[in-house]
Amino acid sequence: MPMRVTASIRAPEPRTASPSARAGATDMRMIYHFGRTETAGNASQRDLLGGKGANLAEMSAIGLPVPPGFTITTEVCAAFDKNDQRLPSALMSHVRDSVALVETETGKTFGSATNPLLVSVRSGAAVSMPGMMDTVLNLGLTDESCRGLAAAANNPRFAYDAYRRLINMFGTVVMGIDHEHFEASFDRIKANYGAAQDTDVPADGMEQLCEAYQAVYRKHVRGRFPQDPYEQLERAIEAVFRSWNGARAVTYRRINEITGLRGTAVNVQAMVFGNLGDDCSTGVAFTRNPSTGESKLYGEFLVNAQGEDVVAGIRTPKPISQMRRWNQACYNHLLEIKNTLEGHYRDMQDIEFTVERGRLYVLQTRRGERTGAAAVKIAVNMVSEALIDRPEALRRVPAEDLTQLLLPSFAEADKKAAKVIAKGLPASPGAATGTLAFTAEEAVERAQAGEQVLLVRKATSPEDIDGMHHAAGILTSTGGMTSHAAVVARGWGKCCVAGAAALDIDPKRRRLTISGATFTHRDVLSLDGSTGEVLLGEVKRSTPKVSEQFTTLMEWADTSRRLGVRTNADTPADAKRARKYGAEGIGLCRTEHMFFEGERIDAMRQMILAESGDERRRALKKLLPYQRKDFIGIFTAMKGLPVTIRLFDPPLHEFLPHEPKAQRELAGRMGVAPRRIKQRVAMLHELNPMLGHRGCRLAVTYPEILVMQVTAIVEAMIACKKKRIDAQPEIMIPLVGIRRELAMLRALTEETIENVRTAKKYTGKLAIPIGTMIEVPRAALVADAIAEVADFFSFGTNDLTQMTYGFSRDDINSFLPAYLEQQVLDRDPFQTLDETGVGELVKTACRLGRQTKAALKLGICGEHGGDPASIRFFHQIGLDYVSCSPFRVPIARLVAAQAALA
Amino acid sequence: MPMRVTASIRAPEPRTASPSARAGATDMRMIYHFGRTETAGNASQRDLLGGKGANLAEMSAIGLPVPPGFTITTEVCAAFDKNDQRLPSALMSHVRDSVALVETETGKTFGSATNPLLVSVRSGAAVSMPGMMDTVLNLGLTDESCRGLAAAANNPRFAYDAYRRLINMFGTVVMGIDHEHFEASFDRIKANYGAAQDTDVPADGMEQLCEAYQAVYRKHVRGRFPQDPYEQLERAIEAVFRSWNGARAVTYRRINEITGLRGTAVNVQAMVFGNLGDDCSTGVAFTRNPSTGESKLYGEFLVNAQGEDVVAGIRTPKPISQMRRWNQACYNHLLEIKNTLEGHYRDMQDIEFTVERGRLYVLQTRRGERTGAAAVKIAVNMVSEALIDRPEALRRVPAEDLTQLLLPSFAEADKKAAKVIAKGLPASPGAATGTLAFTAEEAVERAQAGEQVLLVRKATSPEDIDGMHHAAGILTSTGGMTSHAAVVARGWGKCCVAGAAALDIDPKRRRLTISGATFTHRDVLSLDGSTGEVLLGEVKRSTPKVSEQFTTLMEWADTSRRLGVRTNADTPADAKRARKYGAEGIGLCRTEHMFFEGERIDAMRQMILAESGDERRRALKKLLPYQRKDFIGIFTAMKGLPVTIRLFDPPLHEFLPHEPKAQRELAGRMGVAPRRIKQRVAMLHELNPMLGHRGCRLAVTYPEILVMQVTAIVEAMIACKKKRIDAQPEIMIPLVGIRRELAMLRALTEETIENVRTAKKYTGKLAIPIGTMIEVPRAALVADAIAEVADFFSFGTNDLTQMTYGFSRDDINSFLPAYLEQQVLDRDPFQTLDETGVGELVKTACRLGRQTKAALKLGICGEHGGDPASIRFFHQIGLDYVSCSPFRVPIARLVAAQAALA
Repeated sequence: MPMRVTASIRAPEPRTASPSARAGATDMRMIYHFGRTETAGNASQRDLLGGKGANLAEMSAIGLPVPPGFTITTEVCAAFDKNDQRLPSALMSHVRDSVALVETETGKTFGSATNPLLVSVRSGAAVSMPGMMDTVLNLGLTDESCRGLAAAANNPRFAYDAYRRLINMFGTVVMGIDHEHFEASFDRIKANYGAAQDTDVPADGMEQLCEAYQAVYRKHVRGRFPQDPYEQLERAIEAVFRSWNGARAVTYRRINEITGLRGTAVNVQAMVFGNLGDDCSTGVAFTRNPSTGESKLYGEFLVNAQGEDVVAGIRTPKPISQMRRWNQACYNHLLEIKNTLEGHYRDMQDIEFTVERGRLYVLQTRRGERTGAAAVKIAVNMVSEALIDRPEALRRVPAEDLTQLLLPSFAEADKKAAKVIAKGLPASPGAATGTLAFTAEEAVERAQAGEQVLLVRKATSPEDIDGMHHAAGILTSTGGMTSHAAVVARGWGKCCVAGAAALDIDPKRRRLTISGATFTHRDVLSLDGSTGEVLLGEVKRSTPKVSEQFTTLMEWADTSRRLGVRTNADTPADAKRARKYGAEGIGLCRTEHMFFEGERIDAMRQMILAESGDERRRALKKLLPYQRKDFIGIFTAMKGLPVTIRLFDPPLHEFLPHEPKAQRELAGRMGVAPRRIKQRVAMLHELNPMLGHRGCRLAVTYPEILVMQVTAIVEAMIACKKKRIDAQPEIMIPLVGIRRELAMLRALTEETIENVRTAKKYTGKLAIPIGTMIEVPRAALVADAIAEVADFFSFGTNDLTQMTYGFSRDDINSFLPAYLEQQVLDRDPFQTLDETGVGELVKTACRLGRQTKAALKLGICGEHGGDPASIRFFHQIGLDYVSCSPFRVPIARLVAAQAALA
Repeated sequence: MPMRVTASIRAPEPRTASPSARAGATDMRMIYHFGRTETAGNASQRDLLGGKGANLAEMSAIGLPVPPGFTITTEVCAAFDKNDQRLPSALMSHVRDSVALVETETGKTFGSATNPLLVSVRSGAAVSMPGMMDTVLNLGLTDESCRGLAAAANNPRFAYDAYRRLINMFGTVVMGIDHEHFEASFDRIKANYGAAQDTDVPADGMEQLCEAYQAVYRKHVRGRFPQDPYEQLERAIEAVFRSWNGARAVTYRRINEITGLRGTAVNVQAMVFGNLGDDCSTGVAFTRNPSTGESKLYGEFLVNAQGEDVVAGIRTPKPISQMRRWNQACYNHLLEIKNTLEGHYRDMQDIEFTVERGRLYVLQTRRGERTGAAAVKIAVNMVSEALIDRPEALRRVPAEDLTQLLLPSFAEADKKAAKVIAKGLPASPGAATGTLAFTAEEAVERAQAGEQVLLVRKATSPEDIDGMHHAAGILTSTGGMTSHAAVVARGWGKCCVAGAAALDIDPKRRRLTISGATFTHRDVLSLDGSTGEVLLGEVKRSTPKVSEQFTTLMEWADTSRRLGVRTNADTPADAKRARKYGAEGIGLCRTEHMFFEGERIDAMRQMILAESGDERRRALKKLLPYQRKDFIGIFTAMKGLPVTIRLFDPPLHEFLPHEPKAQRELAGRMGVAPRRIKQRVAMLHELNPMLGHRGCRLAVTYPEILVMQVTAIVEAMIACKKKRIDAQPEIMIPLVGIRRELAMLRALTEETIENVRTAKKYTGKLAIPIGTMIEVPRAALVADAIAEVADFFSFGTNDLTQMTYGFSRDDINSFLPAYLEQQVLDRDPFQTLDETGVGELVKTACRLGRQTKAALKLGICGEHGGDPASIRFFHQIGLDYVSCSPFRVPIARLVAAQAALA
């Protein structure tokens, strides 16, 4: 069976069987019939017929073999309420006419002792109110017709079971008898038969139960259970209308702010049965393969069975392809229905059907769920089949599902066989298997020795970057969807499970304990980054190939969208990958990750420990060639496309070791007293580093850092130009909140560019836009002033969200779960942009910025740049581009197209 | 001499002496004369006469004996520029007429060999551009008149000194000779006379110098130094006009955005000398005592002296009262001038005067600087004297100066005698003396034993509260004006010096080292919280009494202001003090400080360590009686006035000990394993506690805490009501950023109020407004939604500033000094509200809030509530009240009145 699709035949909606329906000669038409003979309504009449009634009419109208029936309109409900909860006097005579029509169509008779028609009575308002109103099934059964049903089905137990259900349901729903009275009778009978389950009670037990239930009914209602099927029907219709103004329904409408409806409609429909013999069956079918998208009927069926039998799991259904052998006509009918459905709904459909005595009935049809791959294939194929146009194809594919097409995943069967030993957050999709490494150093060493390792940490920090990069997957016990581990891993398209709270990690002893079981560096685990599951041992993985349809769809998307799509990438490898996925430039190239590798980190630390500008400049001089080389690599990978480089951002203490041992080692390498390192670390310690000495604040206090970085950028640009590589750097100054911060640093940047040009004797053009991130709320509020000295804005919505809410991403897990559970928040604002609050600031900044400079380029490079709902918002408010992780670039392209088409 | 007033006679503006000025019969009047005979201009003619010229005209016009002179208008400057930098042809003949008038008034003659008139030539535009344009003094000296001056003054050295200055100044300013050529000549002559200082060169050395300077002049100009005084004058006037478009002046105007001016005026004025004999003198006088405000002439003078002599500090000036004995007429003239000045300027004035040969000249007059006490006394007295009205009196007193009237201070003389050993930030004004305590516990113990102690800490934290409260003053080595120590101290009106970086504190060894000197718990230091100075030993302090005038002024303020003034107070003592200072309620009663004392802290810790809601409720039950008692005390102190109680706000870890030893002790007292406490502390640790689990987020996750606090409030209210004490609590829920946070917690609060009412069988009215702090940027952005469930907003501008700028108050010191120095920021935004950014959010919240609920009460309870500039802003945008520390209540009352009168 396909992924993410219900694995077996569902319990079908209880069956129906009913005759004619025709409105009389009153002022208003009270009844709309649906069936072969006559279908009066259609899908547009939800207000009058309710959602269910309109759908049944629609299905009948397009020729689907729906069990016939009729809908009593919502206007009747309104009249019922106006008339002191009494049915219009003419109604029941119309109902009789309609039942007669159903009788004709089905060849059964309501209340018949030989071949009885059974009907269901269901509510159905214009807006779905699941479970809030009443339903009665099996109407039409009486002592007499029950015997008829038993004979017709050749199955007395089935008939009495249906009858006792009717008495129970009618008693509770229509007459208001407490369910526990019925329950008590059943318990007694089960005891008599020594039956543990309801299903263990034999046919005569069921017969006794019907009698017992009738006794309960008599006792509480002071009258016999109605033996006139029309009396049953009338009472049931009243009950459904009454339930419209029942306490549950009224509360539901109030909470969900549903107003302006006339009432509920009532649907009376013939019930059909798939278990009356071997010429009966029940099943589910998709009009195309929901897993691959192949245009071939796909599904399962079970002979002589009801939906319940399938759910009980006692029998195994057969693939739909085998239906041909069981009943060729039915199979052909299904193929015909596939065409009818797709021709009408122009989408892949999922239907439930029942074959009663060789006659196929469709009980329900709905849009079929599908995998990402299937969604793409179906959408593109349906365009070739002229069923839909390209915009519709683009709208059809849920953007989020595209990740499935790009990242490795576990084979469903293998995964099912594996044991889930813990569950964390699905922090970065994909699948990974490996032995465990408990420190970043260990991960690097063992990975370089050829081992596949998973890095297991309580949480990761920038010090772990190298280890994270070398690991096949990352597993943490704390942190949320936007923790360091999650953000970095998503950026790389690397599998990560974060915040698996059941993990007890002891890095010193290199041990991981999960509910008593202990794992060491020799044990193998697997991570499913799409579900957050941690699995025991190795699970087979497969990496999907990019399909032809995917490429086509992406091309269509690109011609439809207005919003540009860039990527967040810090390395040539990432840049290349993103380019392959269609990125039109780099929107965020972080430069700090570049300082963690090998020798660089020591030069970096020397810079931080420097006690004078001179000493600092000497250390920076060592870093310059590395930076230049990094930039040449990235410019080359992105040639011809813009690369927005964010200057140094994090607080300096992130680069110093915090453990005494590591501090001593560093002191040894640098030839200074360990005390000095300890002191410097203590001095740099901040209570709230998020709001501390970082971003452009560092450039104001240590301008040498900016000068080194800008020098490296310009030297790299010149080196590329000399090799005829079109390098297009853009310099982005982070964390600006005050106009003068940017004005000063822009001047220093421009001066440095000119200095390098002079030093390199370069005479060509060096157009380097200089802009800023808008990530501090104040920056958004004074964006008009900041725009005077900016060529572009790029919204850093991660930090902007942190500061606008006052939520630390690193600490939010202590209360976010409670906030989501109690619906204080509808969703994690770090995943989907908060349009009301944070979005307001983004809009303000756009408005003020463009007020100053109409041509100001506006982008966004926070995590939200890869989130579909947020991308839609960014399109609406007129940003020029979004920038996201390489693996989310196709998603962003598609969503941008969808937004443009909306 | 008074505090804060220049301690001795200033160097007077160089003296002048000059004759007539009368515009000729041209189209435009080019010259305006000022003096006894004729004064044509007045103070309103700044555009035409420049600021200086208009002032000289005004002073002459009201009858002050100003040395006579004339002003050449800015129109002439414009004509000069238009005419290729040539003077209008008629000008010099008018100048000659004007000089003649000055000659008549002074009885001296320009260029005379016996009694020469000397004049100064100065620039003066409508807007002051200090030092940007040229000045030439001593014009009129030639070889001949110099000998005349020597004879007249009976002081050849003085005359040659004046002459060599003229040659030097004329040579450099007018003729553009490089100053170093003159310098070299002077060095040679000093060497000849073995003179170290200029003043060591005798009269004949000066005469030689004049010759040498003339030689320098000749060499570079190829012409003799002009011996025609009118040629000197013409060249000097041209030079001043030229300097209007000199590079310095043009740049200055561009930077300061000064536009629309015609040019500079030129002021030619007679020079007068106080050193021509014993009938000469020079001095400074205030029309009232600038220290006490007493209405009596106050100042100093020096016989036969120039301003320079006083500055050189060789001779000591005499008090002005002794002038009577030296020259009764002059003294009487000064008394007359006092009346003239105060009658005209309606304020206390500070004048500079020179007596030349028995004749008094006023050189300058300006508003006199004064102490806070003097300001109040002068303003109130001037109302009784009918010089000004009440609104003007209110406007006159600088609100900030009121602290001087309320807090203890060191006697000026004693402080001068003491040695300043370090300097920190003036974090909380006042003065304190004591021995040193290095921990909070030590401070409490020794203070309770009767000792006066200063608490000396690197920084303080909430754990130190008790010690801070018992200390006489607080001294820290780190942290800024809004560090914990500073904020808490200001709240109490307790003296605090913060961030004294030179301090090296070793709490373990109970030692403080300041540049090599070591102090122990036995040493005494003094702190001046108004200057940030740390002084050696004890310094005598005095506590001012509240004056009658102060009370009067405050009454006037209260009738003028619209803005309410409340206080931030957490204890009955603070509440009472604030009430005495005129607070109209408590705008912020923090409840967390209440949990640090004695047994409470243990119950608090038990609550935090609780592992279930039940356990937590048991611990909270122990805290309830304490809280109730606290509230009864505060309600009683504030009876009849509103008390806004902020529910629990800080992160829980602030209440747990962080040192292993303290953790072990706590574990012992609580009977749990030390490991558990360590674990819990680690679990509660946050990377950015400012943005973490605190405020209403705690109430969402631990509703029991809110329930306990609300119960205590309502029980206290009922207890008060039963004693006929009118308690008016208002409940404030902190850190709300999402409507639903407040909606949920409001519902829980209301439910709790009703539960207590029922439990206490109270039937009276319990009207308790429920509101929130607006301190998270998002709250301001969605204030319309939040207002739906709030009765009031109180702006928490401290946190709002932190989050809007992304500045952690605790960490800002690493870059704020650089920001202020490089003018990235004009001022610390934690001291004065940033109107552009943070203020925009405050305005937005006001607008949105009142849009939802017109009667929404709006207040502010951040530190800015006591800052004059911020209070003005809060008045303008229509807040209902500000709330500030008790000691700043009078300031707020006055500023509120000033704002209303503006």
